[in-house]
Amino acid sequence: MYRNDGFRELERPECLRLLAKAPVGRVVHTRHALPAVLPVNFWLDDDGAVVLRTAADSGLVRAVDGAIVAFEADEVDAAAHSGWSVVVTGTASVVGDAGERRRLDRDVPCSWAPSPREVFVRIEPELVTGRELVGGLTAYGLGRFL
Amino acid sequence: MYRNDGFRELERPECLRLLAKAPVGRVVHTRHALPAVLPVNFWLDDDGAVVLRTAADSGLVRAVDGAIVAFEADEVDAAAHSGWSVVVTGTASVVGDAGERRRLDRDVPCSWAPSPREVFVRIEPELVTGRELVGGLTAYGLGRFL
Repeated sequence: MYRNDGFRELERPECLRLLAKAPVGRVVHTRHALPAVLPVNFWLDDDGAVVLRTAADSGLVRAVDGAIVAFEADEVDAAAHSGWSVVVTGTASVVGDAGERRRLDRDVPCSWAPSPREVFVRIEPELVTGRELVGGLTAYGLGRFL
Repeated sequence: MYRNDGFRELERPECLRLLAKAPVGRVVHTRHALPAVLPVNFWLDDDGAVVLRTAADSGLVRAVDGAIVAFEADEVDAAAHSGWSVVVTGTASVVGDAGERRRLDRDVPCSWAPSPREVFVRIEPELVTGRELVGGLTAYGLGRFL
Protein backbone atom coordinates (compact mmCIF):
# COMPACT_ATOMS: atom_id res chain seq x y z
CA MET A 1 0.00 0.00 0.00
CA TYR A 2 1.03 3.62 0.23
CA ARG A 3 3.19 5.60 2.55
CA ASN A 4 2.50 5.14 6.21
CA ASP A 5 1.60 8.53 7.60
CA GLY A 6 -0.95 8.48 10.39
CA PHE A 7 -2.36 4.99 10.30
CA ARG A 8 -1.25 1.60 11.50
CA GLU A 9 -0.15 -1.10 9.08
CA LEU A 10 -1.60 -4.43 10.15
CA GLU A 11 0.26 -7.71 10.40
CA ARG A 12 -1.07 -10.71 8.53
CA PRO A 13 -2.72 -12.44 11.53
CA GLU A 14 -4.61 -9.29 12.43
CA CYS A 15 -5.65 -8.80 8.83
CA LEU A 16 -7.15 -12.27 8.72
CA ARG A 17 -8.82 -11.81 12.08
CA LEU A 18 -10.56 -8.67 10.81
CA LEU A 19 -11.39 -10.23 7.47
CA ALA A 20 -13.11 -13.13 9.20
CA LYS A 21 -15.58 -10.65 10.76
CA ALA A 22 -16.60 -9.01 7.51
CA PRO A 23 -20.02 -10.03 6.17
CA VAL A 24 -19.05 -9.31 2.57
CA GLY A 25 -16.00 -8.52 0.51
CA ARG A 26 -15.26 -7.31 -2.97
CA VAL A 27 -13.52 -9.12 -5.78
CA VAL A 28 -11.34 -6.75 -7.76
CA HIS A 29 -10.52 -8.07 -11.18
CA THR A 30 -10.30 -7.21 -14.85
CA ARG A 31 -13.15 -7.51 -17.29
CA HIS A 32 -12.90 -6.50 -20.94
CA ALA A 33 -9.56 -4.90 -20.07
CA LEU A 34 -11.22 -2.58 -17.55
CA PRO A 35 -11.00 -2.68 -13.75
CA ALA A 36 -14.07 -4.40 -12.32
CA VAL A 37 -15.29 -4.91 -8.78
CA LEU A 38 -18.13 -6.93 -7.31
CA PRO A 39 -19.35 -7.44 -3.74
CA VAL A 40 -19.60 -11.11 -2.80
CA ASN A 41 -20.20 -13.43 0.10
CA PHE A 42 -17.08 -15.29 1.06
CA TRP A 43 -15.62 -17.79 3.47
CA LEU A 44 -12.15 -17.63 4.98
CA ASP A 45 -10.22 -20.89 4.99
CA ASP A 46 -7.80 -21.74 7.78
CA ASP A 47 -4.79 -20.83 5.67
CA GLY A 48 -6.19 -17.38 4.85
CA ALA A 49 -7.47 -18.28 1.42
CA VAL A 50 -10.71 -16.57 0.44
CA VAL A 51 -13.30 -19.00 -0.88
CA LEU A 52 -16.33 -18.05 -2.96
CA ARG A 53 -19.24 -20.37 -3.59
CA THR A 54 -20.96 -19.59 -6.84
CA ALA A 55 -22.85 -20.89 -9.83
CA ALA A 56 -20.59 -22.86 -12.16
CA ASP A 57 -21.64 -20.81 -15.17
CA SER A 58 -21.42 -17.39 -13.58
CA GLY A 59 -19.66 -14.62 -15.41
CA LEU A 60 -17.44 -14.00 -12.42
CA VAL A 61 -15.99 -17.51 -12.60
CA ARG A 62 -15.15 -17.01 -16.26
CA ALA A 63 -13.54 -13.67 -15.48
CA VAL A 64 -11.36 -14.67 -12.53
CA ASP A 65 -10.44 -18.35 -12.94
CA GLY A 66 -6.67 -18.39 -13.33
CA ALA A 67 -6.29 -14.64 -12.87
CA ILE A 68 -4.63 -12.61 -10.16
CA VAL A 69 -7.31 -10.77 -8.23
CA ALA A 70 -7.55 -8.64 -5.13
CA PHE A 71 -10.18 -9.32 -2.50
CA GLU A 72 -11.01 -6.41 -0.22
CA ALA A 73 -13.10 -5.93 2.88
CA ASP A 74 -13.39 -2.92 5.14
CA GLU A 75 -15.30 -1.32 7.91
CA VAL A 76 -15.43 2.44 8.05
CA ASP A 77 -17.13 4.59 10.67
CA ALA A 78 -17.55 7.90 8.91
CA ALA A 79 -18.67 9.68 12.08
CA ALA A 80 -15.74 8.50 14.17
CA HIS A 81 -13.24 8.76 11.29
CA SER A 82 -12.08 5.26 12.09
CA GLY A 83 -11.90 2.01 10.22
CA TRP A 84 -9.84 -0.69 8.65
CA SER A 85 -9.27 -2.18 5.26
CA VAL A 86 -7.78 -5.56 4.37
CA VAL A 87 -6.75 -6.80 0.94
CA VAL A 88 -5.90 -10.37 -0.03
CA THR A 89 -4.15 -10.54 -3.39
CA GLY A 90 -3.46 -13.77 -5.22
CA THR A 91 -4.42 -16.17 -7.96
CA ALA A 92 -8.03 -17.25 -8.14
CA SER A 93 -8.93 -20.71 -9.35
CA VAL A 94 -11.85 -23.09 -9.38
CA VAL A 95 -11.30 -25.94 -6.93
CA GLY A 96 -11.02 -29.17 -8.90
CA ASP A 97 -9.92 -31.72 -6.33
CA ALA A 98 -12.87 -33.89 -5.30
CA GLY A 99 -11.73 -34.22 -1.71
CA GLU A 100 -11.32 -30.49 -1.38
CA ARG A 101 -14.75 -29.94 -2.91
CA ARG A 102 -16.31 -32.27 -0.37
CA ARG A 103 -14.58 -30.48 2.48
CA LEU A 104 -15.68 -27.08 1.23
CA ASP A 105 -19.20 -28.29 0.54
CA ARG A 106 -19.38 -29.21 4.18
CA ASP A 107 -17.72 -26.09 5.62
CA VAL A 108 -18.65 -23.21 3.33
CA PRO A 109 -22.09 -21.73 4.05
CA CYS A 110 -24.69 -22.07 1.34
CA SER A 111 -24.88 -19.31 -1.19
CA TRP A 112 -27.72 -16.86 -0.64
CA ALA A 113 -28.92 -17.90 -4.06
CA PRO A 114 -28.02 -21.57 -4.46
CA SER A 115 -27.60 -23.00 -7.94
CA PRO A 116 -27.95 -26.60 -9.08
CA ARG A 117 -24.33 -26.67 -10.14
CA GLU A 118 -21.91 -24.76 -7.97
CA VAL A 119 -18.16 -24.38 -7.85
CA PHE A 120 -15.74 -23.06 -5.29
CA VAL A 121 -13.33 -20.33 -6.30
CA ARG A 122 -10.27 -20.11 -4.11
CA ILE A 123 -8.17 -16.93 -3.90
CA GLU A 124 -4.65 -17.73 -2.69
CA PRO A 125 -3.48 -15.46 0.14
CA GLU A 126 -0.18 -14.69 -1.58
CA LEU A 127 -0.22 -11.12 -0.30
CA VAL A 128 -2.24 -10.02 2.72
CA THR A 129 -2.15 -6.34 3.66
CA GLY A 130 -4.21 -4.15 5.90
CA ARG A 131 -4.47 -0.76 7.50
CA GLU A 132 -6.26 0.60 10.49
CA LEU A 133 -6.79 4.25 11.11
CA VAL A 134 -7.26 5.74 14.53
CA GLY A 135 -10.38 7.83 14.88
CA GLY A 136 -11.40 10.73 17.08
CA LEU A 137 -10.22 14.30 17.32
CA THR A 138 -6.80 13.74 15.85
CA ALA A 139 -5.24 14.67 12.58
CA TYR A 140 -5.60 11.10 11.45
CA GLY A 141 -8.28 10.35 9.03
CA LEU A 142 -9.39 8.25 6.14
CA GLY A 143 -7.31 10.47 3.91
CA ARG A 144 -4.31 8.77 5.47
CA PHE A 145 -5.23 5.61 3.64
CA LEU A 146 -3.90 7.55 0.70
CA MET B 1 -21.59 -6.53 -15.14
CA TYR B 2 -22.73 -10.10 -15.28
CA ARG B 3 -25.89 -11.84 -16.31
CA ASN B 4 -29.06 -10.50 -14.84
CA ASP B 5 -30.71 -13.33 -12.95
CA GLY B 6 -32.55 -12.29 -9.84
CA PHE B 7 -31.47 -8.72 -9.26
CA ARG B 8 -32.36 -5.36 -10.72
CA GLU B 9 -29.98 -3.46 -12.95
CA LEU B 10 -30.03 0.19 -12.03
CA GLU B 11 -30.27 3.12 -14.40
CA ARG B 12 -27.65 5.82 -14.27
CA PRO B 13 -29.72 8.39 -12.31
CA GLU B 14 -30.53 5.86 -9.63
CA CYS B 15 -26.91 4.77 -9.46
CA LEU B 16 -25.82 8.33 -8.82
CA ARG B 17 -28.57 8.88 -6.28
CA LEU B 18 -27.37 5.86 -4.30
CA LEU B 19 -23.73 6.79 -4.69
CA ALA B 20 -24.41 10.22 -3.24
CA LYS B 21 -25.54 8.56 -0.01
CA ALA B 22 -22.44 6.46 0.48
CA PRO B 23 -20.01 7.70 3.15
CA VAL B 24 -17.02 6.09 1.47
CA GLY B 25 -16.12 4.40 -1.78
CA ARG B 26 -13.23 2.35 -3.08
CA VAL B 27 -10.80 3.22 -5.83
CA VAL B 28 -9.96 0.16 -7.90
CA HIS B 29 -6.74 0.57 -9.83
CA THR B 30 -3.49 -1.07 -10.79
CA ARG B 31 -0.31 -0.83 -8.79
CA HIS B 32 2.89 -2.64 -9.74
CA ALA B 33 0.85 -4.52 -12.32
CA LEU B 34 -1.43 -5.96 -9.62
CA PRO B 35 -5.05 -5.09 -8.88
CA ALA B 36 -5.22 -2.64 -5.99
CA VAL B 37 -8.14 -1.19 -4.03
CA LEU B 38 -8.36 1.52 -1.42
CA PRO B 39 -11.29 2.97 0.55
CA VAL B 40 -11.52 6.75 0.24
CA ASN B 41 -13.70 9.71 1.05
CA PHE B 42 -15.22 11.20 -2.06
CA TRP B 43 -17.51 13.89 -3.34
CA LEU B 44 -19.97 13.51 -6.21
CA ASP B 45 -20.02 16.34 -8.69
CA ASP B 46 -23.24 17.37 -10.45
CA ASP B 47 -22.28 15.56 -13.64
CA GLY B 48 -21.64 12.29 -11.81
CA ALA B 49 -17.87 12.62 -11.65
CA VAL B 50 -16.29 11.29 -8.49
CA VAL B 51 -13.89 13.77 -6.90
CA LEU B 52 -11.21 12.88 -4.38
CA ARG B 53 -9.40 15.45 -2.29
CA THR B 54 -5.95 14.29 -1.33
CA ALA B 55 -2.36 15.21 -0.59
CA ALA B 56 -0.52 16.24 -3.74
CA ASP B 57 2.30 13.79 -3.09
CA SER B 58 0.20 10.80 -2.15
CA GLY B 59 0.96 7.44 -3.68
CA LEU B 60 -2.61 7.14 -4.87
CA VAL B 61 -2.30 10.24 -7.05
CA ARG B 62 0.83 8.85 -8.66
CA ALA B 63 -0.91 5.53 -9.27
CA VAL B 64 -4.16 6.79 -10.78
CA ASP B 65 -3.45 10.10 -12.55
CA GLY B 66 -4.18 9.45 -16.21
CA ALA B 67 -5.33 5.87 -15.66
CA ILE B 68 -8.70 4.23 -16.09
CA VAL B 69 -10.03 3.29 -12.68
CA ALA B 70 -13.22 1.95 -11.20
CA PHE B 71 -14.83 3.58 -8.19
CA GLU B 72 -17.20 1.39 -6.20
CA ALA B 73 -19.59 1.92 -3.34
CA ASP B 74 -22.12 -0.43 -1.84
CA GLU B 75 -24.43 -1.08 1.01
CA VAL B 76 -25.14 -4.67 1.97
CA ASP B 77 -27.47 -5.90 4.68
CA ALA B 78 -26.22 -9.40 5.34
CA ALA B 79 -29.17 -10.27 7.57
CA ALA B 80 -31.79 -9.15 5.08
CA HIS B 81 -29.83 -10.40 2.06
CA SER B 82 -30.38 -7.04 0.43
CA GLY B 83 -28.16 -4.34 -0.91
CA TRP B 84 -26.83 -2.41 -3.82
CA SER B 85 -23.55 -1.76 -5.54
CA VAL B 86 -22.62 1.04 -7.90
CA VAL B 87 -19.48 1.33 -10.02
CA VAL B 88 -18.25 4.43 -11.83
CA THR B 89 -15.56 3.61 -14.37
CA GLY B 90 -13.52 6.21 -16.18
CA THR B 91 -10.27 8.09 -16.48
CA ALA B 92 -8.88 9.68 -13.35
CA SER B 93 -6.91 12.90 -13.55
CA VAL B 94 -5.65 15.65 -11.32
CA VAL B 95 -7.67 18.84 -11.82
CA GLY B 96 -5.38 21.47 -13.27
CA ASP B 97 -7.70 24.32 -14.18
CA ALA B 98 -7.45 27.10 -11.62
CA GLY B 99 -11.12 28.02 -11.84
CA GLU B 100 -12.15 24.41 -11.35
CA ARG B 101 -9.82 24.09 -8.40
CA ARG B 102 -11.37 27.16 -6.77
CA ARG B 103 -14.84 25.76 -7.28
CA LEU B 104 -13.89 22.39 -5.85
CA ASP B 105 -12.03 23.96 -2.96
CA ARG B 106 -15.26 25.65 -2.05
CA ASP B 107 -17.60 22.69 -2.59
CA VAL B 108 -15.63 19.58 -1.68
CA PRO B 109 -15.54 18.87 2.06
CA CYS B 110 -12.16 19.04 3.74
CA SER B 111 -10.17 15.87 3.89
CA TRP B 112 -10.28 14.08 7.22
CA ALA B 113 -6.52 14.53 7.26
CA PRO B 114 -5.82 17.84 5.52
CA SER B 115 -2.41 18.40 3.93
CA PRO B 116 -0.66 21.67 3.20
CA ARG B 117 -0.70 20.92 -0.52
CA GLU B 118 -3.77 19.17 -1.84
CA VAL B 119 -5.03 18.23 -5.25
CA PHE B 120 -8.37 17.12 -6.59
CA VAL B 121 -8.55 13.89 -8.55
CA ARG B 122 -11.54 13.65 -10.83
CA ILE B 123 -12.88 10.30 -12.08
CA GLU B 124 -14.91 10.75 -15.25
CA PRO B 125 -18.30 8.99 -15.15
CA GLU B 126 -17.76 7.35 -18.55
CA LEU B 127 -19.52 4.18 -17.42
CA VAL B 128 -21.96 4.09 -14.50
CA THR B 129 -23.46 0.73 -13.56
CA GLY B 130 -25.34 -0.55 -10.57
CA ARG B 131 -27.29 -3.44 -9.19
CA GLU B 132 -29.81 -3.81 -6.46
CA LEU B 133 -30.84 -7.11 -5.01
CA VAL B 134 -34.16 -7.74 -3.36
CA GLY B 135 -33.88 -9.20 0.10
CA GLY B 136 -36.10 -11.35 2.24
CA LEU B 137 -37.29 -14.91 1.89
CA THR B 138 -36.83 -15.18 -1.83
CA ALA B 139 -34.37 -17.06 -3.97
CA TYR B 140 -32.61 -13.79 -4.65
CA GLY B 141 -29.42 -13.17 -2.89
CA LEU B 142 -26.05 -11.57 -3.02
CA GLY B 143 -24.91 -14.53 -5.05
CA ARG B 144 -26.96 -13.05 -7.84
CA PHE B 145 -24.47 -10.24 -8.11
CA LEU B 146 -22.41 -12.96 -9.71
